[in-house]
Amino acid sequence: MEQPSYKYSSEPTRNPFRWILAAWRVSRDLTNTNEAAIVEIGFSRSRFGRRFAGWRQVADELSRSPETASALTLRYRLGPIDLQSLELLPEGTLGRVFAEHCSRRAIDPNLVSIPASNEIDFVMAHLFETHDIWHVATGWGNDEIGEVGLGGFYLAQLGLPLIAIMLVLILLNTITRRPATLRERMDALVAGYQMGKSARPLFGLRWDEFWAKSLVELRSELHLDATTALGEGIRAAA
Amino acid sequence: MEQPSYKYSSEPTRNPFRWILAAWRVSRDLTNTNEAAIVEIGFSRSRFGRRFAGWRQVADELSRSPETASALTLRYRLGPIDLQSLELLPEGTLGRVFAEHCSRRAIDPNLVSIPASNEIDFVMAHLFETHDIWHVATGWGNDEIGEVGLGGFYLAQLGLPLIAIMLVLILLNTITRRPATLRERMDALVAGYQMGKSARPLFGLRWDEFWAKSLVELRSELHLDATTALGEGIRAAA
Repeated sequence: MEQPSYKYSSEPTRNPFRWILAAWRVSRDLTNTNEAAIVEIGFSRSRFGRRFAGWRQVADELSRSPETASALTLRYRLGPIDLQSLELLPEGTLGRVFAEHCSRRAIDPNLVSIPASNEIDFVMAHLFETHDIWHVATGWGNDEIGEVGLGGFYLAQLGLPLIAIMLVLILLNTITRRPATLRERMDALVAGYQMGKSARPLFGLRWDEFWAKSLVELRSELHLDATTALGEGIRAAA
Repeated sequence: MEQPSYKYSSEPTRNPFRWILAAWRVSRDLTNTNEAAIVEIGFSRSRFGRRFAGWRQVADELSRSPETASALTLRYRLGPIDLQSLELLPEGTLGRVFAEHCSRRAIDPNLVSIPASNEIDFVMAHLFETHDIWHVATGWGNDEIGEVGLGGFYLAQLGLPLIAIMLVLILLNTITRRPATLRERMDALVAGYQMGKSARPLFGLRWDEFWAKSLVELRSELHLDATTALGEGIRAAA
């Protein structure tokens, strides 16, 4: 078996023109995960972006909450995910559902790994490396509605200004290209926000310890009511 | 007694520089109602603004719904509101609470009247002339949180892209100036959206027939749970 590794070991690009091209592509297609990663990571790590993305504010808040503070001290890194092993787990486990979901949607969960030598970089790195797992755990799919709903979930759980910036892009995309979808996207945003409010904090969880766990049980323990996810959704069992 | 009249009989300005100045002032202070009216009306009536504000889409939707279709045919105009008469109504009536609220917050409900010779202009004119009444009916105050919450209410009831544009301005104001308020504003947006979803449609109501009605009863008939309004709020009785 091939050892899993990251596609980008640090960040996808420092070229501002590549970044603008990626932002343009995302505004046309919200489900373009690869380009979205380039936009978000490029923005988050730029001097300009750091000012508005709000990582410091979120890190401060997480360090004050007893449920998430220890994650900031331990700074556990997930490492590249071995989809081939996860596929061998029993049906209905987090790992198996995750592997099947990635294969069905051609998602590469090992797109990028950001170095994390301090608290703020760790928050950023941890959120990027667990993003695809949050999709599966919450039940919000990788369709447009799913991305918007998960955005609402992140806003509720982390109050991260970066997500508000993404929301601005989504709203501009809606207004200029698909005004008829405004209500459906707002429904998703609001449902995701409510799910994020009632769920336990997902930040800092050791997902690798949950791979073999039943996704139904995991969702119940984390107070994640995946039945409220709109759009395609991700079911706990095939 | 002085007869009530509108401050602006058609629209506040056609001067684009005055419009940009107003937009700038609103982005610094979301509760600047006077400037906000200049921004919204100027934008809504410009050729560029009409393209994105989505009035046609909303008019089409309202004309398809049995609860709102007749309002588009009748095109009833409220006319300037006589606050001095409303102040004489019994305590707890819509009119009395409205007049007291306007006086307390120095709100001029007769700021502007837009001519309406077709369906689309009527939607715009009706929404602008009833905006202050929606505040009182829903219980969302005129503080920042109240404006955001009422914005969510409008989005849920009308799916109006213009409100999504206002939401973009609010989010940009939040990200650049007051990132710490992101959660509280999102809470208001989501609570307002939910209130708008569960309430009966407020579009097209003949508010002048309700002035002497108890606000508590009116809210109950319209399925408006004003206790969910965040921020200052507007109570049914003093």
